[in-house]
Amino acid sequence: MTATPPARRTDAPGRIMSREMGEQPAVLRRILEGGAPDIRRVAQEIAAREPRFVLLTARGTSDNAALYAKYLVEIRLGLPCGLTSMSTITAYGARPDLTDVLVITVSQSGGSPDLVASTRAARQAGAITLAVTNNPDSPLAGVAEYHLDILAGPEKALPATKTYTASLLALYLFVEGLRGGDGSAAQPLPGLVQQLLARQGEVRALAGRYRFAERMVITSRGYGYPTAKEAALKLMETSYIPALSYSGADLLHGPLAMVDNVSPVIAVVTEGRGGEALQPVLDRLRGRGADLVVFGPRRQVEEASAGFVLPTEGVAEEVQPILEIVPLQLLAYEVTIARGQDPDAPRALAKVTETR
Amino acid sequence: MTATPPARRTDAPGRIMSREMGEQPAVLRRILEGGAPDIRRVAQEIAAREPRFVLLTARGTSDNAALYAKYLVEIRLGLPCGLTSMSTITAYGARPDLTDVLVITVSQSGGSPDLVASTRAARQAGAITLAVTNNPDSPLAGVAEYHLDILAGPEKALPATKTYTASLLALYLFVEGLRGGDGSAAQPLPGLVQQLLARQGEVRALAGRYRFAERMVITSRGYGYPTAKEAALKLMETSYIPALSYSGADLLHGPLAMVDNVSPVIAVVTEGRGGEALQPVLDRLRGRGADLVVFGPRRQVEEASAGFVLPTEGVAEEVQPILEIVPLQLLAYEVTIARGQDPDAPRALAKVTETR
Repeated sequence: MTATPPARRTDAPGRIMSREMGEQPAVLRRILEGGAPDIRRVAQEIAAREPRFVLLTARGTSDNAALYAKYLVEIRLGLPCGLTSMSTITAYGARPDLTDVLVITVSQSGGSPDLVASTRAARQAGAITLAVTNNPDSPLAGVAEYHLDILAGPEKALPATKTYTASLLALYLFVEGLRGGDGSAAQPLPGLVQQLLARQGEVRALAGRYRFAERMVITSRGYGYPTAKEAALKLMETSYIPALSYSGADLLHGPLAMVDNVSPVIAVVTEGRGGEALQPVLDRLRGRGADLVVFGPRRQVEEASAGFVLPTEGVAEEVQPILEIVPLQLLAYEVTIARGQDPDAPRALAKVTETR
Repeated sequence: MTATPPARRTDAPGRIMSREMGEQPAVLRRILEGGAPDIRRVAQEIAAREPRFVLLTARGTSDNAALYAKYLVEIRLGLPCGLTSMSTITAYGARPDLTDVLVITVSQSGGSPDLVASTRAARQAGAITLAVTNNPDSPLAGVAEYHLDILAGPEKALPATKTYTASLLALYLFVEGLRGGDGSAAQPLPGLVQQLLARQGEVRALAGRYRFAERMVITSRGYGYPTAKEAALKLMETSYIPALSYSGADLLHGPLAMVDNVSPVIAVVTEGRGGEALQPVLDRLRGRGADLVVFGPRRQVEEASAGFVLPTEGVAEEVQPILEIVPLQLLAYEVTIARGQDPDAPRALAKVTETR
């Protein structure tokens, strides 16, 4: 409308986030081809020490990757597992006995001081410590006994995308290594992610319905639940839409009333037991006339208001999260563009405020 | 405006929730005077079995009570602790080895089938199982090896209030019993809660500022974090305002941008290490010009846009959550009344929708 570009906008909004989303097939391939042997070796060494409990520590996007690992540890390994409340160590000085405990800290940068402090404390308390980072030279990688490199290359956009899928794949291969599996279910992922990225036009069409949304609810169960949380975080970080994520079971315990009339719902439906367990929730949502958009298998999409068909056929449920998040990253990007904002600079609003 | 009362409204909106909030001093006194010996006995029996790891299972409001217990277990007991992802057992059939593991299931009704199923599975897997419910005749109390009765009496309002504070107190006394403490820090609570309830007028004055809010952010750290989550749940269940809760540390990892210009922030500030750890977050929020309302010690309230002074002086930090939530329950109630809705019937909107 004017020859002068708006202040604090790059000429191509979302250029950096778009490029990094596009790198995901190559990053996944790099992990499968270059990183897997290292991951397997670390897993074998840790398996020999027979951990009995697993604790996961992370923040933000990495916290959602850690939650995915929690499902893998409980379901695939059969070990009890928890997410740590870091402040109990860093603020309260708790020093639990961590003998036989594997503590996994996930951090893209590996630089967050509280993660470094809590990992150091866990190691002193007897834990087997493993850092999963995108920087082998980071303080976190240095302080942990073991390290997995997610090999994603520098990430510059504020919304993390390629480091999320890279963390999931590294954690999947690690847990498979712990249990003596070969991780072959991950082989099709780079090609499938490539196909998903090629369907950005479909996502753009869906994004239109959220242009004026004042809030959103995102739900899933089982392996899909970390995807729901990560999709909500991406939408909030880029578009500022308050996106509330709930496991399907929790949604029925109260917040369901929120979806009536006012909140569109996105359901992430895995092909497998998590998707089956979500079925009663989907039925309830349909019964209430919710605006329900499904990211999942074709038959689930066909029963919803709209959706995006995921290529789940023949794909093991435990690796589907590495696919599911990709169109939801694209959705956060496209909704933000549709609302006239820049996905690369989600703090632009803040910068304006600070000049007051 | 009309002689005919609106459909599905009681003559006194919020009458039931109001009454149940008012019962809290009596409920807390009942636990301290009548329930404590039983709780201590159960704790001693379980302590003798030397659990090495604690898993907590719950949903909704009880999940926030479970999170409070997680802080107690990690900080006061020094045991590693996790919140279970129930679907790994109920949907995926995971059967982890739970030898030496204490599994605590918290449920007001004790009737939820998935909680019963997961507790039964945990017991079969070798766990020491403890149910914390408001109904000793419930299926959950029956299936668990041990049971704590929270003695709150029937709860009829949809937003749980007295069962929340009762669960916190029972869990506090239980953890104190496990570590051989006397739990005397809880003695002042009934009187202090009585004083808080008498200050409803102050809360009503604060509620006005949220009458037209489209979203809210609630933050805290450490012991106050479960309070932030529970306050957000109360506000959503009653008023439908999308209330997003974050630990202070997570808020700085991304969603901070959301608070600029558009989202009022409530901070729950404990007197103690959690409050100290929140300080940099409060400074950042103030620096950004956020609308910051503090529930906490006087000096923190005085530095904020507005607030509610909590009687924290001389109160141990670990029992402050039992006080903190009370004015926030009142806030959810008053905001809902101010918006012309009925806190007792938060599904009214849904009922209207279903007649379409």
